[in-house]
Amino acid sequence: MIVNANNSLNDALPTTAGAAAAGGSDTTRTDYVLGIDFGTLSGRAVVVRVSDGAEIGSAVHEYSHAVIDDRLPGSNVPLPPDWALQHPEDWLDVIRRAVPEAIAAAGIDPAAVIGIGTDFTASTCLPTSADGTPLCLRPELVSRPHAWPKLWKHHAAQPQADRITALAHERGEDWIPRYGGLISSEWQYAKALQVLEEDPDTYGRTDRWIEAADWIVWQLTGVETRNTCTAGYKGIHQNGGYPSTEYLAALNPGFADFARTRLEHPLSPLGGRAGGLTARAAAWTGLSEGIAVAVGNVDAHVTAPAARSAGPGELLAVMGTSTCHILNGEQVAEVPGMCGVVDGGVVDGLWGFEAGQSGVGDIFGWFVEHGVPPTYHAQAAAEGISLHEHLTRLAAGQPVGGHGLVALDWWNGNRSVLVDHRLSGVLAGATLATRPPEIYRALLESTAFGTRVIVEAFETSGVPVTRFTVAGGLTRNALLMQIYADVLRRPLSVAASEQAPALGSAIHAAVAAGAYENVPAAAEQMGRVHRDQYLPDAARADAYDRLFAEYRALHDLLGGEHRGVLHRLRELRNETSTSVAN
Amino acid sequence: MIVNANNSLNDALPTTAGAAAAGGSDTTRTDYVLGIDFGTLSGRAVVVRVSDGAEIGSAVHEYSHAVIDDRLPGSNVPLPPDWALQHPEDWLDVIRRAVPEAIAAAGIDPAAVIGIGTDFTASTCLPTSADGTPLCLRPELVSRPHAWPKLWKHHAAQPQADRITALAHERGEDWIPRYGGLISSEWQYAKALQVLEEDPDTYGRTDRWIEAADWIVWQLTGVETRNTCTAGYKGIHQNGGYPSTEYLAALNPGFADFARTRLEHPLSPLGGRAGGLTARAAAWTGLSEGIAVAVGNVDAHVTAPAARSAGPGELLAVMGTSTCHILNGEQVAEVPGMCGVVDGGVVDGLWGFEAGQSGVGDIFGWFVEHGVPPTYHAQAAAEGISLHEHLTRLAAGQPVGGHGLVALDWWNGNRSVLVDHRLSGVLAGATLATRPPEIYRALLESTAFGTRVIVEAFETSGVPVTRFTVAGGLTRNALLMQIYADVLRRPLSVAASEQAPALGSAIHAAVAAGAYENVPAAAEQMGRVHRDQYLPDAARADAYDRLFAEYRALHDLLGGEHRGVLHRLRELRNETSTSVAN
Repeated sequence: MIVNANNSLNDALPTTAGAAAAGGSDTTRTDYVLGIDFGTLSGRAVVVRVSDGAEIGSAVHEYSHAVIDDRLPGSNVPLPPDWALQHPEDWLDVIRRAVPEAIAAAGIDPAAVIGIGTDFTASTCLPTSADGTPLCLRPELVSRPHAWPKLWKHHAAQPQADRITALAHERGEDWIPRYGGLISSEWQYAKALQVLEEDPDTYGRTDRWIEAADWIVWQLTGVETRNTCTAGYKGIHQNGGYPSTEYLAALNPGFADFARTRLEHPLSPLGGRAGGLTARAAAWTGLSEGIAVAVGNVDAHVTAPAARSAGPGELLAVMGTSTCHILNGEQVAEVPGMCGVVDGGVVDGLWGFEAGQSGVGDIFGWFVEHGVPPTYHAQAAAEGISLHEHLTRLAAGQPVGGHGLVALDWWNGNRSVLVDHRLSGVLAGATLATRPPEIYRALLESTAFGTRVIVEAFETSGVPVTRFTVAGGLTRNALLMQIYADVLRRPLSVAASEQAPALGSAIHAAVAAGAYENVPAAAEQMGRVHRDQYLPDAARADAYDRLFAEYRALHDLLGGEHRGVLHRLRELRNETSTSVAN
Repeated sequence: MIVNANNSLNDALPTTAGAAAAGGSDTTRTDYVLGIDFGTLSGRAVVVRVSDGAEIGSAVHEYSHAVIDDRLPGSNVPLPPDWALQHPEDWLDVIRRAVPEAIAAAGIDPAAVIGIGTDFTASTCLPTSADGTPLCLRPELVSRPHAWPKLWKHHAAQPQADRITALAHERGEDWIPRYGGLISSEWQYAKALQVLEEDPDTYGRTDRWIEAADWIVWQLTGVETRNTCTAGYKGIHQNGGYPSTEYLAALNPGFADFARTRLEHPLSPLGGRAGGLTARAAAWTGLSEGIAVAVGNVDAHVTAPAARSAGPGELLAVMGTSTCHILNGEQVAEVPGMCGVVDGGVVDGLWGFEAGQSGVGDIFGWFVEHGVPPTYHAQAAAEGISLHEHLTRLAAGQPVGGHGLVALDWWNGNRSVLVDHRLSGVLAGATLATRPPEIYRALLESTAFGTRVIVEAFETSGVPVTRFTVAGGLTRNALLMQIYADVLRRPLSVAASEQAPALGSAIHAAVAAGAYENVPAAAEQMGRVHRDQYLPDAARADAYDRLFAEYRALHDLLGGEHRGVLHRLRELRNETSTSVAN
């Protein structure tokens, strides 16, 4: 075990578990770990060198069923608006296909892999039998929408979420301030309560209600574990326990024993060893039976050590289809609209704060797919670049505020600071002179403004933000990064790995395997970041202060006192669609 | 002269001026009039039979310079945002080209034309020498933006309009309630004051400040006239006079004598004879020298008799790039945000109310040109229909409110009821599931909601609206018409002529030529309408009541207390553009 991060790797290697079993020369023996990142549309496996975090090989498996939001596979049962499901076999296919491919791509001996770490979207959760079998895989339940795993962005349990929040305030539950005063429809309770209330039979057959993050570890180790991160952020586990039976009974009498019977299980700390790889999983992957499998984790949270953004005051924004903000603080605080604060929720010894934006890259993608006329497509094709890239180039030439536009980035609702998924997107300031690259830029900016609202909420609540680091696919857009630096008036550091969540999982695998004493020590050796890659420009930042003031004004109007407008528009829309078939 | 509309034409013909000069058999002699409609992008001449309003032949001339909003012709001087100019030679080209072409198309003897009537966009106004020469045609002024005619949709004089309105309230001017309490930047005073304040030299060279509606009549007759319609609606002529010298001096000392020196002239009633066609104009057109030329008129107002919508309580919406609402009432009333109320402003003996929406077809056109991806273009092309038509078909299949969207139809500002051209367009309710036909439908609906706001403003102010008639190019879109019927919960009558303004001008020409006693009598014979062509559907109307409530809420927020958001976005946009070069 490496107990001091400044020790050389070779000094430490002889003590590494499993080193004796490894092939090759004793003096050149190198250990590897495997990080597996389960995303919204695909899973990625990366082989990482334990000594320095070098990514040696990787492979991606695209989920065959992607996001199930139209009809159920097989039965073709239609789904109402706001539903989003996934298929558990898609996740297992990542293990069965991407892992061996990554090993092959790395060109290493599978026996040199000493541990596996995983991370998942959250709260993506599912009902299972006592042995972990997903209910949706049982033939008699395959046509029941509620038997299927609900993806994080399943937003159809908003009525339940509203009641969960309201009742918590009514009863003065001590955990509600830990979640910014609001419980999201994306989390475990709202989704489970929706099952109970819309399909009680399926609920009755549910032995375990489990995060996919923990379910996949169960598949790898054969034993159920529950990680502190999802239990804390998505499962309302605070001060050593779940919400009381009395509270749950008051939500719905049939829900009284939900936590006690379907969630309850000892929690495992992040970086801990969940168990050893089973013979079945070893056969799937070609890895050695019994190697360490780290406890489950969440894609955003696991990225913090990979981007060396796990110290107090260091905020990490993981930017992809949506953005998750991870911030460690030395003290607990109540921040409006934050998704949660969990003791040791990101790293041991610090309070881990989470916030989020429900739509970011998704919004840009929507516009590029549905809002841009043929001339721009043709120009992009002629230049051999993507339409995103073409619009970015055109938008980059615009002066700040020159488009006269401001958008509210609520195309997929609002997670922080409003926690309201009935909100929807707004574009204001359009004239007959408005052109697509201007709208594109306004959408990029709207997400930066949304981030600024979150950063300001933390700071005014007494949680300092001393460094801002970005990870995720959107870091490739230099204009977007510069806009964030200008809007936030802060230097932007950028995670150096393009597979940062998988690298983070690999870091946890290394700790679980005993190669490092703890996650910070492993992060120091294995994590990588480009410090202060983007610096704010004072003139642009000044102009953005003015635009942000208008964003803030609209945000507070249409997300505050007058949010009923957007709520009622959504209700009217939903009334015209089909309701869920059980 | 036909004194009774039921008289046969032949009974009346022998008394018609010029009948003796006409060729052909005495017993079959038919008289014609010519209506010329000067629009935003083109001018149209229509040959109309005096007896029954039949449209015998027509021709269109597209203005070579269209709307000048980027750079001045010849000098290439750039224009700031919100500018919109026109070229006087484009208007004369309509006389020189479209008129002879229309006569030729009609296949009639030019000598059978007994009169000419014209109508124009308004307030489109220009500075001229004492002899009517436009200043922009003088070589030393050709590169001065302020020497050019300002088109109705020139919106750069908003600061002047704001001061005109504020000072009127401050001084308690008795005319300000006649304009809904607000004077538009589109009218004569704001545009002239902008010239004085931004280019005093050009202002100093201005002998006459005149509506294009009157200028074109000057070119046809050789004599200056001023019509009651533009003087009343655009020139603040009320109770027999213009605003006082004291008021104008308080606006700007240099403006004190504006009305007295540059506007003052006896007014001529609508349908009156401005003069006889000059030899020069006869040579341009091939028509007979000396035939009657009617006094100038406005495109929307002149359409009311053409659509037989000139009685009390009959509201005519002329729908094209923008919409103008014309309503006659038996009593004067103060209506919030109306553009004006003028005694005899539309027909003698009634108070003519005007209201308007600055952007309607312009907004649909903007979306179709700048917001629709290639697949829709390809589908429309494959079906051999326009993209407008394709989107309309797709939108027609949607249930009311199914898109969850509401838009504020302010892409070109708001004329009624807010009279605020610093407002801009808003789209609310967008989600990742929103598709282009849904946005297209929301834009159609937004203009119907804007119309409903106007109708309700009239009715709550004591001006009943008993019939709703539509004219203009947008009547071709059946979905749009049905949406208006449903949103307004009223039957919709539709002008039968596709050239209704030109027909209206022809009606006025017939009266000026003495063929009818007055405009209502001529309208009874020559106007045409499809009564109650679209009927409201109760269920859709109920759903639209709910959507309209959200439109109204956003309208009142972002056009009321919180309009500063949109104002400041526009200011920021304008700051980044160039300012006018004198």
